[in-house]
Amino acid sequence: MKLLRYGERGAEKPGLLDNEGKIRDLSGVVSDIGPDALSAEMLSYLSDLVGANLPKVEGTPRIGPPVGTIGKFICVGLNYADHAKETGKTAPAEPVLFAKATSAVCGPNDDIEIPRGSDRTDWEVELGVVIGARAKYVDEASALDHVAGYVLVNDVSERRFQSERSGQWIKGKSHDTFGPIGPWLVTKDEIADVQNIDLWLDVDGDRRQTGNTRTMIFGVAHLVSYISQFMTLEPGDIISTGTPPGVGLGMSPPTFLREGQTVRLGAAGLGEQRQKMVQA
Amino acid sequence: MKLLRYGERGAEKPGLLDNEGKIRDLSGVVSDIGPDALSAEMLSYLSDLVGANLPKVEGTPRIGPPVGTIGKFICVGLNYADHAKETGKTAPAEPVLFAKATSAVCGPNDDIEIPRGSDRTDWEVELGVVIGARAKYVDEASALDHVAGYVLVNDVSERRFQSERSGQWIKGKSHDTFGPIGPWLVTKDEIADVQNIDLWLDVDGDRRQTGNTRTMIFGVAHLVSYISQFMTLEPGDIISTGTPPGVGLGMSPPTFLREGQTVRLGAAGLGEQRQKMVQA
Repeated sequence: MKLLRYGERGAEKPGLLDNEGKIRDLSGVVSDIGPDALSAEMLSYLSDLVGANLPKVEGTPRIGPPVGTIGKFICVGLNYADHAKETGKTAPAEPVLFAKATSAVCGPNDDIEIPRGSDRTDWEVELGVVIGARAKYVDEASALDHVAGYVLVNDVSERRFQSERSGQWIKGKSHDTFGPIGPWLVTKDEIADVQNIDLWLDVDGDRRQTGNTRTMIFGVAHLVSYISQFMTLEPGDIISTGTPPGVGLGMSPPTFLREGQTVRLGAAGLGEQRQKMVQA
Repeated sequence: MKLLRYGERGAEKPGLLDNEGKIRDLSGVVSDIGPDALSAEMLSYLSDLVGANLPKVEGTPRIGPPVGTIGKFICVGLNYADHAKETGKTAPAEPVLFAKATSAVCGPNDDIEIPRGSDRTDWEVELGVVIGARAKYVDEASALDHVAGYVLVNDVSERRFQSERSGQWIKGKSHDTFGPIGPWLVTKDEIADVQNIDLWLDVDGDRRQTGNTRTMIFGVAHLVSYISQFMTLEPGDIISTGTPPGVGLGMSPPTFLREGQTVRLGAAGLGEQRQKMVQA
């Protein structure tokens, strides 16, 4: 099942894609695609409505982030061996964790702001994990029981803010619009193998990133279990699992985003995003 | 005005202290002390009710965190010159920022969990700032216009998780109960000078921390302005502004919290907290 939220920013309605890929309105069923809608029971209930006679949504509304109340946005750094190498770092002994401010979350096709004073705004296509059930001290074997599904994420970063402003990385990860999510929350039953998802990203039509989740250093089940040793994961939390090679920082010479450019990215089964770069 | 939330965890009701220091029930007026209650207009409206005939709350209910929907919990590291020194670090050129997971928030007198595998759980008394109005690229002169009030915070930390687990600090700052806040949200009109607030913390009756916000490296107005250059601050967000000297990590030898110990802390005008240490 593909769940989504559509409508103007701050006033999104819940919806799902029907069997023809059209948006149906879920606002008569749930108030939002938020923590309360993400339990296994609720997702099972909603999946029975995919073929039902829900109201059709006309036109092509803006798509918002597919989760409405995100408590935490936890990101994993340097989680693809080749990406760690391109940034000049060695692969970490255990997952590197940092936070992105939840105020950075936006829809998958919203404009991305280049912060004032930025000259190193960079892209990162990533697989995002949406938590569906509370996870505290869970083991790797049961970790995926706590996952509702997956989303496409662009973990937009300002490299100078991230690394040259007295720390920590959150400074370069949290500007408004630095967290495009979606278009859909794809429930985990639709993903045959989360460690075999192709990822790609283009800037102005030039391919910059190509990867597959099979080359992650720490896989999704390990990450959920690992993070749950340090903090409790709650329904609606997002984990962004790191980026494959090909970020601007790793190019020779390093190359960053400029006003007017267009970023497109996608992940197999999770849809695509398209963002225009604007100046804050 | 002193706003608070009382009742069982997850079911707290909004309240305020009347002129006799007794809790009055605000649940007939606002649904929560959340983002919608923190605007200057709403705070002015609520302050007119301090002497009104609101329902009295009987008994001594548990006190919860005084803000109900905290979007971000941004902390400032090494913001007192003497504390930076005791940790062996030099004072930073600009504020060090890190996040604490919002799931770590708890009431001021709730038990604090020592995480499994922890041998370095440490205390940090801090002044917390509660945002009342959206702040993006605000200057220092207008920064306090975006502040609703102040809270007492214990920025509990696991030093090994913070510094020896491949990064970043969020790993050692985010365990459940590592963010006691309260007892009250004290509106800014009650604080004559936010840069002259005494802070203290005891462990089992022994004074460990003594400080005053006048020795902050970066003051509150600077911090609000500074953070707003990197991310948008929203109503209900909390900024914890760093701790004065006297943390366990800085003792000789370093000394950390053990199961059964009691931590007490306070800030002039902001009330006191008392926590018992338990094992997770």
